[in-house]
Amino acid sequence: MAKKNAFYAQSGGVTAVINASACGVIETARKHKDKIGKVYAGRNGIIGALTEELIDTTKESAKAIASLRHTPSGAFGSCRYKLKSLEANKREYERLIEIFKAHNIGYFFYNGGGDSADTCYKVSQLSEKLGYPVQAIHVPKTVDNDLPITDCCPGFGSVAKYIAVSTLEASFDVASMAKTSTKVFVVEVMGRHAGWIAAAGGLVEDHGIPVVILFPEIEFDQKKFLAKVDAMVKKHGYCSVVVSEGCHYPDGKFLAEQGTRDAFGHAQLGGAAPVVANMIKDALGYKFHWAVADYLQRAARHIASKTDVDQAYALGKAAVELAIKGQNAVMPTVDRVSDKPYKWKVGVAPLSKVANVEKFMPRDFITADGFGITAKCRSYLLPLIKGEDYPPFKDGLPQYVRLKNVAVTKKLASFKI
Amino acid sequence: MAKKNAFYAQSGGVTAVINASACGVIETARKHKDKIGKVYAGRNGIIGALTEELIDTTKESAKAIASLRHTPSGAFGSCRYKLKSLEANKREYERLIEIFKAHNIGYFFYNGGGDSADTCYKVSQLSEKLGYPVQAIHVPKTVDNDLPITDCCPGFGSVAKYIAVSTLEASFDVASMAKTSTKVFVVEVMGRHAGWIAAAGGLVEDHGIPVVILFPEIEFDQKKFLAKVDAMVKKHGYCSVVVSEGCHYPDGKFLAEQGTRDAFGHAQLGGAAPVVANMIKDALGYKFHWAVADYLQRAARHIASKTDVDQAYALGKAAVELAIKGQNAVMPTVDRVSDKPYKWKVGVAPLSKVANVEKFMPRDFITADGFGITAKCRSYLLPLIKGEDYPPFKDGLPQYVRLKNVAVTKKLASFKI
Repeated sequence: MAKKNAFYAQSGGVTAVINASACGVIETARKHKDKIGKVYAGRNGIIGALTEELIDTTKESAKAIASLRHTPSGAFGSCRYKLKSLEANKREYERLIEIFKAHNIGYFFYNGGGDSADTCYKVSQLSEKLGYPVQAIHVPKTVDNDLPITDCCPGFGSVAKYIAVSTLEASFDVASMAKTSTKVFVVEVMGRHAGWIAAAGGLVEDHGIPVVILFPEIEFDQKKFLAKVDAMVKKHGYCSVVVSEGCHYPDGKFLAEQGTRDAFGHAQLGGAAPVVANMIKDALGYKFHWAVADYLQRAARHIASKTDVDQAYALGKAAVELAIKGQNAVMPTVDRVSDKPYKWKVGVAPLSKVANVEKFMPRDFITADGFGITAKCRSYLLPLIKGEDYPPFKDGLPQYVRLKNVAVTKKLASFKI
Repeated sequence: MAKKNAFYAQSGGVTAVINASACGVIETARKHKDKIGKVYAGRNGIIGALTEELIDTTKESAKAIASLRHTPSGAFGSCRYKLKSLEANKREYERLIEIFKAHNIGYFFYNGGGDSADTCYKVSQLSEKLGYPVQAIHVPKTVDNDLPITDCCPGFGSVAKYIAVSTLEASFDVASMAKTSTKVFVVEVMGRHAGWIAAAGGLVEDHGIPVVILFPEIEFDQKKFLAKVDAMVKKHGYCSVVVSEGCHYPDGKFLAEQGTRDAFGHAQLGGAAPVVANMIKDALGYKFHWAVADYLQRAARHIASKTDVDQAYALGKAAVELAIKGQNAVMPTVDRVSDKPYKWKVGVAPLSKVANVEKFMPRDFITADGFGITAKCRSYLLPLIKGEDYPPFKDGLPQYVRLKNVAVTKKLASFKI
């Protein structure tokens, strides 16, 4: 049989730079046409493989593919769909292999976080077992920055930059208003389990901003927190609070879970930011403003970190190069060589060591009182937000690409997921 | 007596470009040292004049003043403090004139929205009456874009750009996730009375995004709204909703006022975005995400509109030039000359016609169904978000200036406000 095709899919929450990884995969594959045939993408992630909704990326122009580098979101669609264990989901894993066989796919590039690393690993195991070898390479992506071995995860640097820039700007605003109006500004950031994104808010301290960080790694102590905010406001006239959505009480209850009900008795979903803001108002009487960044933070390609974009692209490229070298069940990583000047290189990690491991903030990245970041954390974070990589603009708005996403003709019977 | 000094103060909510106006005032005054002495700034706005807390801007280097052009927030501090009528607040108006006399101030540049235009007008009236003539010039500033006569208000173009860019980016994100997860994204924007900022979210329609806008000018009709969202999701697979904080029911009650109480019976303050998002979930079952941009939107100097920055500077400059020409009780305006290509020039409006007039969205800027913007609105908005004017960055963060803000020696007895 001729050279094999490749399959690429995006998984889980998308980021400002996951398409830069897609760009790295596709451009690199195109440079190695002697080794790799077509790159097919899954429409809406792995679901597209199961339902045989494949996208033929060869139908996209070089310019369109290049534009992926500056386009946020998942250009082929992503999905939240976790394949369970091989035993529980054997049917779906076998279907994947059937699809790969039918379309002569020998390379599986899976671009996602912890769950997809696990799936990727399982695909490589099963394909061997079923006698249809597929080289499965995981391309890391997660704003949560919680994958092991790699120094950082593509997607994180840009969200960190967005949060640091936004906290800086909003803090300047509060400082201007504090004399007669708002004294505390609260911004809620992503990170259900790990406080990496919240930590990025701490970088504004270097710019003289009084800031209190609430990490998911530190159990929330209301009394200590209010005393900290009060001291900050008394000293500086104002302060900013960066609260992780994952911040919780010692019993595990999230701050956002307030058990509030509306006039009709419906449970009211709120964010952690308004809870924290109202807590401050009730106890200390300070006027507040609050923001919830939500998708704005992970989609903000306009203020992406150049370091992050470069790494996202490089890991996509490396994935293809690893595949060509015959590697299987691996993930390219960012290996930090030095902090100052920041130097990094691409490494490689076996998926057996990546799957199902979550990386939290080390305790020595958080100050003793639990409300700030240490110099060690700063040294870690600063290079990751360095550099700007603005997308092209036209008439005031960024020019993000939409691909044609032409479907590959189906060859198999339909499959119910 | 020798040439007069000038007094400059920032008022109300600050913006990404109010300091660009300050830059225009100070740099232009420095070029006319034969006509204007020192520029004093009020520490925390007009309060700084009442309490004689003046800042000597001559102590700032040319470089620091130039950096104001790319620094968001109010560099001298702002305040929310409205002087009432001349009858009710005569003591405070007289105090202002005393301060101006004591510091040989002949020019009053007041940088703010509707309220400060009114104050500025009153100062000019009273100063004549008291026989100490002060030329009072208002420099327009408001993200709400609700001042009359001027085609737009400095501060608005940048927040409009931020909202348009952010809505575009988040919508790309939702589109990627919609197959198995989030189908509706809701973002809440500023604008208590006027829907100009919300309208900016409508610009993403040109990029193929299905978007529903909730304006304060249109009474909220839950049934129609839910039907609209449902139709959008059924057609496109997802949609974005931009809700103005001022959106309200026919009886005037804001969407954000839900009468919710926490476990302790405290009234729970929330935003309009979570209310709208939960409403969609309850009625239609679509998974949602929501964001509240709050200060992030008006402070976002990193994505300021170049048109806006240019106009903010130009109006600060024009204010000084009008003063030198002997004008009083006026406000420089942006006069639109043409849409395509966009051309504008600086005009001038008498404060008697500016004070206490609020400019809402014209009905023909809003689509018949009340959920979108018309081509006419588009033509109005597009030039205002045009162009980028990135601040300088260092180590990943924008380099915003902090002034020394050196106090002027007091000459009068203290004054209780």
